[in-house]
Amino acid sequence: MGPLMDLDRSAAEALDAVDPLAWFRDRFVIPDGIVYLDGNSLGMLPRATVARLAAVVSQEWGERLIRGWSEGWMELPNSVGDELGSAVLGAAPGQVTVADSTTVCFYKLASAALDLRPGRTEILTDLDNFPTDRYVLEGLAATRGLTIRWLSGPADGGISVGDVASAVGDRTALVTLSHTAYRSGFIADMAGISAAAHETGALILWDLSHSAGSVPLALDRDGADLAVGCTYKYLCGGPGSPAYMYVRDELQEQLRQPIWGWLGREDPFAMAAGYVPAAGVDALRSGTPPVLGLACAQEGIRIVSEAGVPAIRAKGIALTSYLIEVAEGLLAGFGVGVGSPRDPAGRGSQVALTHPDARGLCAALIHRGVIPDFREPNVIRFGLAPLTTRFVDVWDGLNTLRDLLASAAGGSSRP
Amino acid sequence: MGPLMDLDRSAAEALDAVDPLAWFRDRFVIPDGIVYLDGNSLGMLPRATVARLAAVVSQEWGERLIRGWSEGWMELPNSVGDELGSAVLGAAPGQVTVADSTTVCFYKLASAALDLRPGRTEILTDLDNFPTDRYVLEGLAATRGLTIRWLSGPADGGISVGDVASAVGDRTALVTLSHTAYRSGFIADMAGISAAAHETGALILWDLSHSAGSVPLALDRDGADLAVGCTYKYLCGGPGSPAYMYVRDELQEQLRQPIWGWLGREDPFAMAAGYVPAAGVDALRSGTPPVLGLACAQEGIRIVSEAGVPAIRAKGIALTSYLIEVAEGLLAGFGVGVGSPRDPAGRGSQVALTHPDARGLCAALIHRGVIPDFREPNVIRFGLAPLTTRFVDVWDGLNTLRDLLASAAGGSSRP
Repeated sequence: MGPLMDLDRSAAEALDAVDPLAWFRDRFVIPDGIVYLDGNSLGMLPRATVARLAAVVSQEWGERLIRGWSEGWMELPNSVGDELGSAVLGAAPGQVTVADSTTVCFYKLASAALDLRPGRTEILTDLDNFPTDRYVLEGLAATRGLTIRWLSGPADGGISVGDVASAVGDRTALVTLSHTAYRSGFIADMAGISAAAHETGALILWDLSHSAGSVPLALDRDGADLAVGCTYKYLCGGPGSPAYMYVRDELQEQLRQPIWGWLGREDPFAMAAGYVPAAGVDALRSGTPPVLGLACAQEGIRIVSEAGVPAIRAKGIALTSYLIEVAEGLLAGFGVGVGSPRDPAGRGSQVALTHPDARGLCAALIHRGVIPDFREPNVIRFGLAPLTTRFVDVWDGLNTLRDLLASAAGGSSRP
Repeated sequence: MGPLMDLDRSAAEALDAVDPLAWFRDRFVIPDGIVYLDGNSLGMLPRATVARLAAVVSQEWGERLIRGWSEGWMELPNSVGDELGSAVLGAAPGQVTVADSTTVCFYKLASAALDLRPGRTEILTDLDNFPTDRYVLEGLAATRGLTIRWLSGPADGGISVGDVASAVGDRTALVTLSHTAYRSGFIADMAGISAAAHETGALILWDLSHSAGSVPLALDRDGADLAVGCTYKYLCGGPGSPAYMYVRDELQEQLRQPIWGWLGREDPFAMAAGYVPAAGVDALRSGTPPVLGLACAQEGIRIVSEAGVPAIRAKGIALTSYLIEVAEGLLAGFGVGVGSPRDPAGRGSQVALTHPDARGLCAALIHRGVIPDFREPNVIRFGLAPLTTRFVDVWDGLNTLRDLLASAAGGSSRP
């Protein structure tokens, strides 16, 4: 199988040679000696971010000092939010702001949504939703005496419109799901599920963390009420960069988030007595905007915007399809399964491969410079960020995995 | 008075010449052409931060990517918290963590404190407390049906032990105050007020934003239960850098903060079902730590630590005393008052000068390159960060103010 493997790498090289997004890799800092397949955990560093951050620090903070707040900093949450809304989320201006961590943003919007549905006693979510969403909901449910109704989809999939439609009812205050499931990569039907929630008067809150910057989103069109997401995955905002909140225009006047800070108040620098929420998404703010993180998020969003989500999506489908194809060829007989949807339209820019020793294999891969991540209980998750991942990276990663599996099977290169 | 003024500036120069902290100014980026007297709003940029941030971005994020989380990033909130606790807060290790904005931190701790005193119906705070604290409390009180009892101190002072002692009672769940008042600079008696709160079984939460890095703090010794503060003022963490929370050791097991995120859970990467709070201050975490902001905060804290709070405090007293003295000489007869405590021991590293046209004067000062800030209704606030402010800066600032007042009074240099 040696020659065949060479052939296979040539095939990857050929795919890279015709990849219209290949040149975007030069816009990023690419570390030597590793094959990075974890861009859905932490996106790579855009070169533009290095320059921008140096300018924000040395010229803005260093030279302008407090004047920076009236020279653009205070507007960053909303201006970055609008850029994100337009380029990535399918959201018209004035509905997105960037602030806080994803967890805090999710808490604010989930709490505010529950306040809008008093008397309703249930929250509907996915048993396999991203952990922070589940834990926030548990906290809110405990405080308010609500019940969480846990939906359950297949391990290689997620929650369908039918799952939601059959569980939602007039007791449901809030339905909340990840748009792309963090482990399987399953893409939920935003329009269908939002409609099913609305059918019974529930609100819908989407977590877009594993979608934004990799798959098309149309929040306005698809009936999302509320959404949150992080900027450090496909949006390349850097470790712990701030998250964003989307609140549909029509809901903004009634929605009241729970953390009443000075920067969410009307005319904050009056520092007056009594909290009066600011108009629009400004009311979602609490504390002082994290300027450095916002600048980094903005640079990442701009690269995504420049490449365009349709082109990114096309490459994401090609990469994940290629990975599954190569896995089925190279890894056949080693007990590796595919834990992601087979239909590329229903799959984000990530693939879960399953194996009983996924944890050990993942550690061994990282030791050899191939970086995916492990997800409980049995998943090696490959996040194929389309702007920085080459087809040869996929091939190299799986070929290394094949070597590891073959050694474990006793040195034979064919099981 | 011309020659006298020259003499006065020489006096400032003489004070600078013998200032043992003068050399710390070289550790900061100092903008040309301005006199910066607003270090209590936004601290100057440490040169070390420029280098550190470049390393964190290019070497850690750029090269190590997701591996950064297991190579120190995940520990930053607590390691920076412990450095801050030891150097600045008077807090033994394991009681401080850095995360989120001050507003979100204040919300978490105030909410958690109220949960620990069920059945009690009142919150006690200062009518002139920093706005974000007041607004957060209003939000919590509205949700829980509690009453806020507003204490009121003199405009040039703050809340005394007696004020608290006579208002606190068995209905009081929480007493919360700023340690240094944001407008007047009044320093509250932490030990006395904490004891008065405890006398009736209330908890005490301190906002240290205008104290930390400028005046001595001894949270452990002085009986603080809880505290929060920002890192972008005297701690020089940069615009919107993350805040910190202190929870006294004995309270940590019972205290449960409301935003149950994945990183506050025991064994977060198990991503298991059901929130179980982590041990110690880890349970205060919600979302992903903001790595860049944490690195900046750490550098600022390290400079403060190196200089030492006692030396910083000594210079802060000298600077503010000098400012008041010069104001009383240079500005006599122009309707300028002192809106800060006269006793230097009771005053932070800031001075409020009052004038009916404070707003206009402040704008005119900034136009001339002298940067204090305006605070409603009639205060020009001078924040004299001891590591970066020279006595000549104080003199130059007040001399410019004198010119403005004299022009307004008709060009006479003596009113």
